[in-house]
Amino acid sequence: MENTFVFTFGSHTDGDKSMKELLGGKGANLAEMCNIGIPVPPGFTITTKACQKTIENGMHWPDSLYEQVIKGVNHIEKDMNLGFGDPNKPLLLSVRSGAAVSMPGMMDTILNLGMNDLVAKALIDQFGNERFVYDSYRRFIDMFGDVVMGVEHSLFEEAMEKLKAEVGASSDLELNAEDLKVLVDRYKAIYRKHTGHMFPSDPMEQLSFAINAVFSSWNSSRAIKYREISHITGLIGTGVNVQAMVYGNIDNNSATGVCFTRNPSNGEKVLYGEYLINAQGEDVVAGIRTPIPISDMKHRMTEVYDELLGYTNTLEAHYKNMQDIEFTVQQGKLFILQTRNGKRTGQAAVAIAVDMVKDGIVTKQESISQLVQPEHIDQLLHPQFATTKMDEFEILGKGLPASPGAAVGMVVFDSKEAEEAKQRGEQVILVRVETSPEDVGGMSAADGILTSRGGMTSHAAVVARGWGKPCVAGCSDIIINDQTQSFTNGDITVHQGDWISIDGTRGLVILGKQDRIPPKLNANYYTFMRWVREYEPMEVRANAETPEDAKVALDLGAQGIGLARTEHMFFGADRIRSIRKMIMSDHEEERAIFLKELLPYQKEDFKDIFRVMAGYPVTIRLLDPPLHEFLPHDENELEAMAIDLQMPIEQLKRKVVALEEHNPMLGHRGCRLGITHPEITKMQTRAILESALELLAEGMETKPEIMVPLVGNVREFKHQKRLILEEAEKVFEQYNARINFQIGTMIEVPRAALTANEIAEEADFFSFGTNDLTQMTLGYSRDDAATFIPSYLDAGILTDDPFQTIDREGVGQLIHMAKELGSITNPNLKMGICGEHGGDPRSIELCHELGLNYVSCSPFRVPVAHLSVAQSAIKQAIEDSALYAC
Amino acid sequence: MENTFVFTFGSHTDGDKSMKELLGGKGANLAEMCNIGIPVPPGFTITTKACQKTIENGMHWPDSLYEQVIKGVNHIEKDMNLGFGDPNKPLLLSVRSGAAVSMPGMMDTILNLGMNDLVAKALIDQFGNERFVYDSYRRFIDMFGDVVMGVEHSLFEEAMEKLKAEVGASSDLELNAEDLKVLVDRYKAIYRKHTGHMFPSDPMEQLSFAINAVFSSWNSSRAIKYREISHITGLIGTGVNVQAMVYGNIDNNSATGVCFTRNPSNGEKVLYGEYLINAQGEDVVAGIRTPIPISDMKHRMTEVYDELLGYTNTLEAHYKNMQDIEFTVQQGKLFILQTRNGKRTGQAAVAIAVDMVKDGIVTKQESISQLVQPEHIDQLLHPQFATTKMDEFEILGKGLPASPGAAVGMVVFDSKEAEEAKQRGEQVILVRVETSPEDVGGMSAADGILTSRGGMTSHAAVVARGWGKPCVAGCSDIIINDQTQSFTNGDITVHQGDWISIDGTRGLVILGKQDRIPPKLNANYYTFMRWVREYEPMEVRANAETPEDAKVALDLGAQGIGLARTEHMFFGADRIRSIRKMIMSDHEEERAIFLKELLPYQKEDFKDIFRVMAGYPVTIRLLDPPLHEFLPHDENELEAMAIDLQMPIEQLKRKVVALEEHNPMLGHRGCRLGITHPEITKMQTRAILESALELLAEGMETKPEIMVPLVGNVREFKHQKRLILEEAEKVFEQYNARINFQIGTMIEVPRAALTANEIAEEADFFSFGTNDLTQMTLGYSRDDAATFIPSYLDAGILTDDPFQTIDREGVGQLIHMAKELGSITNPNLKMGICGEHGGDPRSIELCHELGLNYVSCSPFRVPVAHLSVAQSAIKQAIEDSALYAC
Repeated sequence: MENTFVFTFGSHTDGDKSMKELLGGKGANLAEMCNIGIPVPPGFTITTKACQKTIENGMHWPDSLYEQVIKGVNHIEKDMNLGFGDPNKPLLLSVRSGAAVSMPGMMDTILNLGMNDLVAKALIDQFGNERFVYDSYRRFIDMFGDVVMGVEHSLFEEAMEKLKAEVGASSDLELNAEDLKVLVDRYKAIYRKHTGHMFPSDPMEQLSFAINAVFSSWNSSRAIKYREISHITGLIGTGVNVQAMVYGNIDNNSATGVCFTRNPSNGEKVLYGEYLINAQGEDVVAGIRTPIPISDMKHRMTEVYDELLGYTNTLEAHYKNMQDIEFTVQQGKLFILQTRNGKRTGQAAVAIAVDMVKDGIVTKQESISQLVQPEHIDQLLHPQFATTKMDEFEILGKGLPASPGAAVGMVVFDSKEAEEAKQRGEQVILVRVETSPEDVGGMSAADGILTSRGGMTSHAAVVARGWGKPCVAGCSDIIINDQTQSFTNGDITVHQGDWISIDGTRGLVILGKQDRIPPKLNANYYTFMRWVREYEPMEVRANAETPEDAKVALDLGAQGIGLARTEHMFFGADRIRSIRKMIMSDHEEERAIFLKELLPYQKEDFKDIFRVMAGYPVTIRLLDPPLHEFLPHDENELEAMAIDLQMPIEQLKRKVVALEEHNPMLGHRGCRLGITHPEITKMQTRAILESALELLAEGMETKPEIMVPLVGNVREFKHQKRLILEEAEKVFEQYNARINFQIGTMIEVPRAALTANEIAEEADFFSFGTNDLTQMTLGYSRDDAATFIPSYLDAGILTDDPFQTIDREGVGQLIHMAKELGSITNPNLKMGICGEHGGDPRSIELCHELGLNYVSCSPFRVPVAHLSVAQSAIKQAIEDSALYAC
Repeated sequence: MENTFVFTFGSHTDGDKSMKELLGGKGANLAEMCNIGIPVPPGFTITTKACQKTIENGMHWPDSLYEQVIKGVNHIEKDMNLGFGDPNKPLLLSVRSGAAVSMPGMMDTILNLGMNDLVAKALIDQFGNERFVYDSYRRFIDMFGDVVMGVEHSLFEEAMEKLKAEVGASSDLELNAEDLKVLVDRYKAIYRKHTGHMFPSDPMEQLSFAINAVFSSWNSSRAIKYREISHITGLIGTGVNVQAMVYGNIDNNSATGVCFTRNPSNGEKVLYGEYLINAQGEDVVAGIRTPIPISDMKHRMTEVYDELLGYTNTLEAHYKNMQDIEFTVQQGKLFILQTRNGKRTGQAAVAIAVDMVKDGIVTKQESISQLVQPEHIDQLLHPQFATTKMDEFEILGKGLPASPGAAVGMVVFDSKEAEEAKQRGEQVILVRVETSPEDVGGMSAADGILTSRGGMTSHAAVVARGWGKPCVAGCSDIIINDQTQSFTNGDITVHQGDWISIDGTRGLVILGKQDRIPPKLNANYYTFMRWVREYEPMEVRANAETPEDAKVALDLGAQGIGLARTEHMFFGADRIRSIRKMIMSDHEEERAIFLKELLPYQKEDFKDIFRVMAGYPVTIRLLDPPLHEFLPHDENELEAMAIDLQMPIEQLKRKVVALEEHNPMLGHRGCRLGITHPEITKMQTRAILESALELLAEGMETKPEIMVPLVGNVREFKHQKRLILEEAEKVFEQYNARINFQIGTMIEVPRAALTANEIAEEADFFSFGTNDLTQMTLGYSRDDAATFIPSYLDAGILTDDPFQTIDREGVGQLIHMAKELGSITNPNLKMGICGEHGGDPRSIELCHELGLNYVSCSPFRVPVAHLSVAQSAIKQAIEDSALYAC
């Protein structure tokens, strides 16, 4: 086995899907398909080991590799009943790279390898289609020259353009066989000029060169950099897949297409996709000819269609997932070229997950861990346009409902523009004739995507669905004019910067900025989420400070409020006045009087939330931001405030200046405020407990948790805890009643994590404030880091934005330390996180690994968090049982 | 022993100085003095154990304590040949608290205990001084009432004032014996009214009450809070010292005084101090009568003086330190009341240390670890006024040279004012008639202190000497007028805010702001520092970026530059222009051109420093601050810059706005700049290496260390290291020569400490930037924390300002982690600190404990750091040998 470098697939298959490391992902998958009887064009895979040895030997193949490749070619010849370089029935091959993990920078596909003048002639004899043969020939020289020998692709393009001009052709399709024959000669001349060699006519020489090119691409600087950035280690090289060519463009009994085993928009169980008769695979994707719905095939190629349906069912059942399949029909014979898990919308994902469990294809556990991603659930919670308003809409055009959901934004025609607009905080709809991989940045930045050309499997459609971003594709009702930066439906013209709305669920393009309504969740969603909620190693709470948000969160499955920020409650017109008077006073007693004015408001705030969350815990954070946030900074507002408070403006200005901070993030805020202004802590404690007691009198139970922010030293916490307990005793005495409540703290200052054992002795709970903890541990100001984080991501210094996904090594380590230290001194300590990361799947997985008790996130992320929690639990259970099995 | 609660001292002494825990500091010390034959008034100490048991038993004395106290009293009676409550030869006692560690909140002294009407009569018979006796009596009732029974002292004061008004006395001294007798009766009435009891006339009852009051004071809220704040744990209670009263105010053969065994200003070996004939101890300190120099005693009380001289020599030799001694002479008999190590100036400390080694009293090691504190060395480096200029000075007055050194500042008359001025960054001289403990804050804030009353042992003098702050005391040439906030010498009037200069070395008050010159170091200093440098477990480097500073540092013993900040080098007129042009450019190539303009300057900077530090390592930090620091923010300057750079002002303004940051501390700075602007790193690397190579060509060796700031992720460091190495290769090729240099990093972001193992694999050295590490670990902005740090210190949340002394638990823990992790992957890693803490003795001790290789501090702190290093080494050696002995 040590020296087995070639694994065949087809009539005889050596590998299977478990052998990814040795055969690469693609090789293992081709073998697997053969094993389950799928008609894959036969071929062989050269192992990653062979790649490694070749590179180690200075690009000399290991002993016997050449012989094994010959045997592999013989295997294909036998299966296809053709001969490689045979001047009668010639076999052509494709060569592709394929490592265990797919990565950019690896060698692209080479098609039609084995072609030479004799072979071309034989193919013409065989298929009677001269144009097809010379078109294949010139494509082969272009690809081989470009990919294997480094001859610039643009040189070939220029030659093509020149020829088109000479013969007066406006498109490639207008070039006839004779033209293409001329082109083949010119391509060979270009090849010779730029390589110094004749174009190799020996098929085996072509194959050796191509295999070496794949090997070499493993160490291309782009591939190395990608592995570095993505921390891919332990891989030894890439596999090489050599496979028989099949042709969908020989005649009208040939075809090529792509299909999904289910509808990727809504999950309906129906073969879904497009095909083109007498066409090559790239024609379907390129969008030059408009493809036909796959359902049409049922009538035109009934037998093949039924055969295809059978295989797609097999593949879906085998891979236990909805499949995205590429196929080619060569003169009535069906070949499956590739299968992979299909991208789908959130609605489809949930429907498929539920159906596949009902159909017995997957277990509930598998459906949760493999069929629905957190982003899918997120999509379902996206808003829609109100159907009742449809009549009032000015419809600009109708296209394909390529990715569901409602988006509104200002029109931009350029991806770069879209990215810049996003940076400025603007909402945009990217409008393009078609999109290409170069548009990915702009598509990501846009709120929605509209194209005037392309089908349901066009680039725009596939990418948008993957992201759950609304997309209307192929809207031929509109004409885009890049010159004037506008589009028109012949009636109305929309310019860059104008607002439009797109309905990706219905394929509508609507004039203006339309209102959207919250999504309606369907039965599949509730079924699926019920299964998800069977896995609950961690609670999911919500960050909310209004009864409205709390209600949304509760409805979406929140098991409490993990963070109610009290500062937002002070910005109402009546309230801000009292807080400003409080700030302007230099005497604790006077400040207490102004704070007393706020007490009734604050009590009502808390009562409202307690009422909504009846029975669930509500964590209320004491005032956190620096006081200057409550003062105006603009001259007019200052004047208004001076009049309102009846104070000289100079006095106000002095205070504003006195409160200014160089680094407010690290300034006089959090418990530092509560310590220098104990009256604030007292008032808020009173408001929390009075409202809880008054509700108790109404017969309603509450679970208040008072949270002290920005603690870095146990003595800060003790100070605040003593204040809270003293005030509580006063309130209890006054009301002649008591309630249970908890006092805990945010862990958001690195020092708090480092001394968590001390703090835990005093605290009932820790809530990791991962936003601030990230800012301080990494020394990144969240408001300023945009100036360098993109460069860091580009350079591979960061793999993720640490404000989106918890930095495992740094911040994660501190959380781990705090958890371990805290548990030692307080085994009953409750721990959770309440930063933005609480809704991020990978961060949730980390929290689960670390054994936290809950995550808290924004209301609309609650279901996403539930799914992430369930997936983390399942993943761990699988790992544990694997460990147990060892 | 378990039940021995009373230890006597005097003719029979049970304890010694090792028994602090059981007897308290004061008790152990009194016993020790007795052991070496010092005439201490006899007495006994009740143990801390007795205190603990009494408190545990709900204030019931343990069995046998009463009997032991009686025995103790008998011991005193025997030694003094007097009887407690004896109506013929009565014994009076003093009662004092005394725990192992002195702390505020403990019970004050009670004097004259044992007094009653019969005893008073006997004392009058004995001493023939009726006024003395009734004065003692009324003082006793006041103290007992106040301290033991909680009767407000002000009530007694009011009675005194009333009586004075009645008899027309303007001062206490004018009250005669008859008046005081009346006062005793009135005091008793006050006592009765406010306690509900008769004043106890039974001496044993008085004693029991007083002892209980001491016990109770152990748990006074003030004492508890102090122990909490100071983290004093493990103490079980306070001792009680009961001692025979002796009187310095009986007749003219009686006296009381304080003396130092050497001159505390310059260290000269001569008995130094003051005394008062026919006076009580408090009269000397209170400053009501002006004391006489102790040398006068030699003539007036020759025998007693000689006796005193003998005892002071014994005490100094025994305690191996200069002593501050209190004594009383009762009718020709000398008693030593207290001895302790004397406070002294820096000059005196070093002189004493050197002399005591030469005299064989202490070893070099003892002189380093016990006789000189880091602050003493710091004082020696303080500037002085030029003696050559003395003739030109306008001298306002002459006072006592209470604490040497030269200070200049604006006059303030109020301590609070001094503190506020300091906050505003102003230099002030605090001018007071006298100072009291309430002035300590203002004295600390002031640059110098001037008093118009009080001697060399007045409060102002003692405190100022302790701090090494210049002080002129008792300058009776000036009259202070608090009303008009001014002082005058009758000729010139100086108002609040006017500048004066004071020369604490000569006792001069000088008009105006005079120039000061750097200190001249004397032979004692060099001798002492030579001994200090024999202990060098850690290098001491300096933070310096000019050749002048580097020269100072080198002369003061720096063993290299630990931090040369390159940003300061760019603010010269020619340089700032280039750097601004660089900032204004959006293209890397263009920026590189502007940076090239800076190269020659930067090279000269480095050459100058390398030349000064020849042979020693020089750590150069790459550009650290955010770019906006190099741009003007004020409208006029912006306009000037626009003209200078020939750019539209709007463009400049846009850039200024674009570079603004919310939290610049956590912003786009440090290596983040070097990564987004690689050309900066390249230029600086080139400047460092070209200058080193050019010096090499001149035959001079250099040891450059390039330091990358603000690394938080090993990939940042790798990125910069690669740039530096690439540029280095280019430079070496160009110069056709190579040099060795190191590349290391600051550890100042918490994440760097947490991932130090990774970073250490790549780095040659770590330099802990404890300023920033403190900011981020604690979440304190250094520029803003003044708003809450004082409150934190007051409330005992912080025991030290973490920007002065490293926060051991948080920041210290991270340094420890980084050291351990770094050593695992790179055993050769060199580690040091270069924050402000590098000159702080306690922080240096921590660095030594953690095993760092060097500290780096500002040039004038270098000798201080050397001493701290030596003291840490000695401390550890002693601890190690103690451990070894076990």
